[in-house]
Amino acid sequence: MMNDKIAVIELTATALRFLDQTQLPSEAVMVETADHRVLLEAIRRLQVRGAPLIGIAAAYGVTIAARAWLRRHPASSDAGAFHRDMLHVCDEFAATRPTAVNLFWALARMREILAHPLSPDMLTAALEAEARALHADDALRCSAIGRYGAEIIPADAGVITHCNSGALATGGDGTAFAVLLEAHRQGKNIHVYADETRPLLQGARLTMWELRQRGIPSTLITDGTAAMLMRQGRVQAAITGADRIAANGDAANKIGTYALAVAARHHGIPFYIAAPFSTVDLSLASGDAIPIEERSGEEITRIGGSVVAPEGIDTYAPAFDVTPAELITGIVTERGIIAPPFDETLRALHP
Amino acid sequence: MMNDKIAVIELTATALRFLDQTQLPSEAVMVETADHRVLLEAIRRLQVRGAPLIGIAAAYGVTIAARAWLRRHPASSDAGAFHRDMLHVCDEFAATRPTAVNLFWALARMREILAHPLSPDMLTAALEAEARALHADDALRCSAIGRYGAEIIPADAGVITHCNSGALATGGDGTAFAVLLEAHRQGKNIHVYADETRPLLQGARLTMWELRQRGIPSTLITDGTAAMLMRQGRVQAAITGADRIAANGDAANKIGTYALAVAARHHGIPFYIAAPFSTVDLSLASGDAIPIEERSGEEITRIGGSVVAPEGIDTYAPAFDVTPAELITGIVTERGIIAPPFDETLRALHP
Repeated sequence: MMNDKIAVIELTATALRFLDQTQLPSEAVMVETADHRVLLEAIRRLQVRGAPLIGIAAAYGVTIAARAWLRRHPASSDAGAFHRDMLHVCDEFAATRPTAVNLFWALARMREILAHPLSPDMLTAALEAEARALHADDALRCSAIGRYGAEIIPADAGVITHCNSGALATGGDGTAFAVLLEAHRQGKNIHVYADETRPLLQGARLTMWELRQRGIPSTLITDGTAAMLMRQGRVQAAITGADRIAANGDAANKIGTYALAVAARHHGIPFYIAAPFSTVDLSLASGDAIPIEERSGEEITRIGGSVVAPEGIDTYAPAFDVTPAELITGIVTERGIIAPPFDETLRALHP
Repeated sequence: MMNDKIAVIELTATALRFLDQTQLPSEAVMVETADHRVLLEAIRRLQVRGAPLIGIAAAYGVTIAARAWLRRHPASSDAGAFHRDMLHVCDEFAATRPTAVNLFWALARMREILAHPLSPDMLTAALEAEARALHADDALRCSAIGRYGAEIIPADAGVITHCNSGALATGGDGTAFAVLLEAHRQGKNIHVYADETRPLLQGARLTMWELRQRGIPSTLITDGTAAMLMRQGRVQAAITGADRIAANGDAANKIGTYALAVAARHHGIPFYIAAPFSTVDLSLASGDAIPIEERSGEEITRIGGSVVAPEGIDTYAPAFDVTPAELITGIVTERGIIAPPFDETLRALHP
C-alpha cells in the first residue's frame, strides 16, 4: 500500500477489489466482492468516492453484475433478459450519487455496448474490456492533466487544495493532485496546504495521506484557516477538482470549494479547477442546473463515535457547492488549460 | 440547566462552581473547586472559554486563591506575603491564554485592589466584591449590547454567526448572541445559521445548544457552507464576538471569522462585531500587533476518540484570526453601535 502506486480499485478474474476509503488513514482495508450490490452500497457510503473513480467503479460494477448473471444462467443465451437486467444495474448505479457527471458518462458507455445484438457472454467480455479501458484512459488523462497543470504552479509556491483529487479519487494520479505531484516531481519548491474538508474530512484523511506517501511538503489546516493563510501571503495558487462543469464554466465541487474561490479572489490569488473533459456537461447552461446532493445531517453532527451537536437540531449538509465561472482562472484538462470565456472555450475543445 | 438562565459560573460561600463546556452538548457537568489551579487548567483546556467569561473567571480565581491563603494562614496579618502571593496568582491567570484582552483587563482591576495597604482578610473581601461586580457588570453590558445590536437586524432575516458568543462566553446573555436573542424577543423573524466552528466545534456544541434553549429558529452548517448560503440569498447579516479589537478597529476572533467576513463582503452582506468595550485595546495600533494563540495540532487531527488524519503530519492551528477594520460594518458595544472610521470613533467613545 505504501509504494509509489496506490491500489484503489482492481478487477481480478473472480472479483472486484476496492479500498474502503472511510477507514483511512487508520487502516487501508481492501474489500473483495463479486456482488455489485456491495459496490452500490460502498459508493453511497463514500467507501469509494471521487468523481472519476465513481465512473470507473460503476463500469466495473456492471461488469461483475454481468459475470454474476452468467453464473446464475450458465447455459442461457437469452440476450433479452441479460440486456434488461444489465440496464437495471446501470440504473442502480446511476441512482447512487447525483452530482458527479463522470458516473453518468461511464454508464452511457456501458449502455452503448449493451445495445449491440451479441450473446450475454460476448457482451460481458465487452463490458469488462470497456471498464478496463475507462480505467486505463483515466490514468492517461490524469498524467496529461498533471503535465499541463504543472505549468501554472510557480517555482516557489504555497498551493492550497480542497477535498481529495488524487489517486484515491481517480484511475491514475488524480486531477488537482496530479498537478501538485507533477510540479513536485519537476523540482518546484511547493508547499501544499490541505483544507481538512468538513464534514467528511477527505482533506485530512485522504489528501494528507497521499501527500505524505508522495513526499510532498504539506500542512493540514481547517477550512476556515485558508483565508487567513492567504492574507499572510503564504498561498500563491489554489487548485481543486470538480464533479461537474457546466457549459459556461461554473464548476460543482466539494462543499467549501466556493468559499475557497471567494477567498482567493479577495486576495488576488489564481483559482484553478483540474478535471478530465468527461466532467464537462455541455447539456447544462450554467451551474444553477447542476443537481446538488444533500447528505444526512449526521455527517455534521457525529464524528467517529462522538456526538458533536445537540440532538434534534436542524442542519443543512449539501455535499457540493458551485463555483461560478467568473471566479475560475482556468480549467486544467487532459487537452490543455482552458481559459475564459469558458462558454466559448469549453465548447470549442469538446469532441 | 434548561431554564431561561444558564448557570455557567458561580461563586458560593466555599467554592467556585463552573460548567465544563468541553462536555457539552452531551452532558452539563458542573465542576466545584476551592483550588484556583483547577480553574487555571480549566481555562487552558477551554472548559471555561469566551473572552468576557475568561475575565470574570480569572477574577473569581484570584478570589478563591485569596480565600485559600487565609485558610492556610489563619492568624496572619502579613500583608506583604499575601500581596506577593496574589500577584503571582494574577500572573498565572495572565499566562493561560494570550489573545483575549478582557482577561488582562479583569486582572488589572484585581491588581489595583491589591495595591491598597489593607489586611489580607480585608483585601480578600474586596477582591470578591470586585469579581462579583465584574460579573454583574458584564450581564448589564450584554443586555445593552443586545438592545443596541437588535436595531441592525432586519425584521425578516437570515443571520449567520461563528463560534459561541452567548451565555456560555460571558457573564450575561452574550455579545453577538445577545443581539440575536434580543431581535428574537422583539418578535423579529430571524433564522440563525451557526457555523460549526472547527476545530473545537463551539458553534455546533455550544451555540446550537443555546439557540435551542432559547427557542430561536436555527440551522447548523459547516464553516465551508457559509459562502454558499450567502450566494443563495439566505443570509442578510453576519455578526460575531471578538477577543480583542485594536485601536483601528481590526478585530481578533475565533479562527474562521476572517473567512466569514471576506465572504460577507463578496456578497455585499453587512458584517458586525459585538463586544464590550473592555475588548478594545487602544494600546495596539492595528490587528498585526494582536498576539495570536496557536493551539496543538491534535485539536485538528483528533475529534473525540477518533483520529482523522495520518500520524506525524504537519498542522497549522491558530485559535484566532484577525478581521481587518475595512471588512467590519459596525462594532456593537454597550455604549452603542460604533461606525467607521474606527480609528477615530473607538478613541472618541473610550473612557
